[in-house]
Amino acid sequence: MRILVLGGDGYLGWPIAMYFSRADHEVMVVDSLAKRQWEAEVDAAPLETPPTLRHRLRVWNGVTGREIHVAICDIAENAGLVYRVFEEFSPDAVVHCAEQPSAPYSMLDRNHALYTQRNNVLGTLNVIHAIKRFVPDAHLVKLGTMGEYGTPNIDIAEGWLEVDVGGRRDRLPFPKLPGSFYHLSKVHDSHNIHFACRIWGLAATDLNQGVVYGITTDETELDPELHTAFHYDAIFGTALNRFCAQAAAGVPLTVYGSGGQKRSFLNLRDTLECIRLAIENPAAAGTFRVFNQFTEVFSVLELAEQVASAARGIGIESKIDHIENPRVEAEEHWYSPRNDSLLALGLEPRLLSDELVTTMMRRIGESVERIDRATILPRVLWRQEIGTVAPS
Amino acid sequence: MRILVLGGDGYLGWPIAMYFSRADHEVMVVDSLAKRQWEAEVDAAPLETPPTLRHRLRVWNGVTGREIHVAICDIAENAGLVYRVFEEFSPDAVVHCAEQPSAPYSMLDRNHALYTQRNNVLGTLNVIHAIKRFVPDAHLVKLGTMGEYGTPNIDIAEGWLEVDVGGRRDRLPFPKLPGSFYHLSKVHDSHNIHFACRIWGLAATDLNQGVVYGITTDETELDPELHTAFHYDAIFGTALNRFCAQAAAGVPLTVYGSGGQKRSFLNLRDTLECIRLAIENPAAAGTFRVFNQFTEVFSVLELAEQVASAARGIGIESKIDHIENPRVEAEEHWYSPRNDSLLALGLEPRLLSDELVTTMMRRIGESVERIDRATILPRVLWRQEIGTVAPS
Repeated sequence: MRILVLGGDGYLGWPIAMYFSRADHEVMVVDSLAKRQWEAEVDAAPLETPPTLRHRLRVWNGVTGREIHVAICDIAENAGLVYRVFEEFSPDAVVHCAEQPSAPYSMLDRNHALYTQRNNVLGTLNVIHAIKRFVPDAHLVKLGTMGEYGTPNIDIAEGWLEVDVGGRRDRLPFPKLPGSFYHLSKVHDSHNIHFACRIWGLAATDLNQGVVYGITTDETELDPELHTAFHYDAIFGTALNRFCAQAAAGVPLTVYGSGGQKRSFLNLRDTLECIRLAIENPAAAGTFRVFNQFTEVFSVLELAEQVASAARGIGIESKIDHIENPRVEAEEHWYSPRNDSLLALGLEPRLLSDELVTTMMRRIGESVERIDRATILPRVLWRQEIGTVAPS
Repeated sequence: MRILVLGGDGYLGWPIAMYFSRADHEVMVVDSLAKRQWEAEVDAAPLETPPTLRHRLRVWNGVTGREIHVAICDIAENAGLVYRVFEEFSPDAVVHCAEQPSAPYSMLDRNHALYTQRNNVLGTLNVIHAIKRFVPDAHLVKLGTMGEYGTPNIDIAEGWLEVDVGGRRDRLPFPKLPGSFYHLSKVHDSHNIHFACRIWGLAATDLNQGVVYGITTDETELDPELHTAFHYDAIFGTALNRFCAQAAAGVPLTVYGSGGQKRSFLNLRDTLECIRLAIENPAAAGTFRVFNQFTEVFSVLELAEQVASAARGIGIESKIDHIENPRVEAEEHWYSPRNDSLLALGLEPRLLSDELVTTMMRRIGESVERIDRATILPRVLWRQEIGTVAPS
């Protein structure tokens, strides 16, 4: 199969590209490399900075004998090149993770809110137009987020809500309560893609993904230079990754507010499995399909306690600090999302274990001197624009 | 009250600005004048081209003695000027109709889809950031559209859906099924504004407006140069306005498909009343309020038949032609939207009458030699990009 990975330089995109390449698919990656600029802008860096994309592709070729094609392209700004890629590579499946992925980054100020929505929404509009024009039968697999739903007081179904109002029934898009301009951009994408499926007959799977944790996949372990960008900072790092970095660095785990806010989570390796299952079982033409892509639900405090407990097991004492919540979010709420679709397709969840946490902490420990503790504490406030600032 | 009218050069914005100025409010209009460029681009023109905005403001001053302030500003592209306007004018209420308002224009091709969403979504993002920074207590009155809802198989409530799933209850944003990239942009706006109300405590009213018809208001009648831009073409003209122009020009009324598609409608004069009612009864701080702003529901065929019948009454024989539907939309569907809120605030609907239709036709008849019949027939196809073309 010919698989186009948009955002192939990223935390998810790079492991996804290697995974499908190793499984003997013809893979092409597209990336603007903008994420590396955003990191520089906020003076944050992944635990280890990955080599350039082209270098990684050469290493991949040397290690596996396989070639991954590449185009450096801003999909939001360079529609001409997007069209050329779709026409020449002619993908069967498109995995789209070429978006600005950070909620705090989108909340820095007006400028970053606009940038995030322009980048994500217009990029996705270019992608659906390119699919329509050149590969109308291709399957679009779009990375969305569970954060699109927010925390409604009802169970979260997979993308759709069955309604019965006074005896009249319909199946409608599940109402969304996103919590940042970033999460909003994904809601906008979902509406735009749904429309493209309705009027042009495109086939799409929207993967509403939980918070991803993890640092390794089978492919990242093939060579030290094949690692993926692991973020532990407050802007690009996700909760569990951040807690593991704090434990490894011997600083308190910082929980936002009470930590009662519940979220859904999954292992990076399960992200790969989920995308494989989506691609091997494509959406039908004209169908906009939504999968909730996660394996477990934790409160943020439970997550911190699990990390602290696992850390104790290897002799690290970790304190948990409750700090003022920089976000505007409910800290006590109902949260019961469904994830039946991927389980029905055969997903076998790798549940969070002390072993995984300690493995992550050990791995982080190898580079612990690189951790910049100042970048872990939240600086972006939901209620107040701060603009771009380096940590003090 | 200090009222800022964004999009004050438009079909709605100009009458709105005059209406509030005449009612002794302090009014400022902002407009990029881009609509006049879009008209030139597709070689369409209003029945009578209004004088320049600054000239109209001078005429208004001469006729009424009142001054309307003005800034020529693209609110999506020039955030610096947007901020200056909000800081210096310091509005109590902001009426936002500064958006690309045409569904067909947004469906011309990739470029126009992106332009529409960039213009509308980023412009509104600038507006909510400006309100937050300079006038956090101001009331945002945003023009949305009934087309955001599409045609679900349940009654359309006003912005919210009361849900009960297995005994758990919530009040959630009403699911949206918009029918064009333009309608999608309004859905995105609604989500963004709702978020701003939730996290920043802004006060907003989203007016999901039906299809507006009409050519005159009390203020446009004060001087021939104070008329508003009346569009009858297939890209910027709305259904009833188009039918009246066809009847006046003695050509068949062109109904898309069977004409069974139902839509909600209101008189331009009622648009003014609705906005007045919204402004005089503002949303509370932190509240995102949605009003469905229409007075009547008709099928497109019913509308054509009413125009044909009224035309007969003044001696004009009008044929109704069913032409292939250029849009992708259901032509037989449930449609039962609520509009209780504005009625409860005191709206007294001006219902569509033969008298109104004949008055419109007579008014159009005065300029009938200006009607370009080629621009009335639909050229933009929902399923196929055509790009920018002048009518042949």
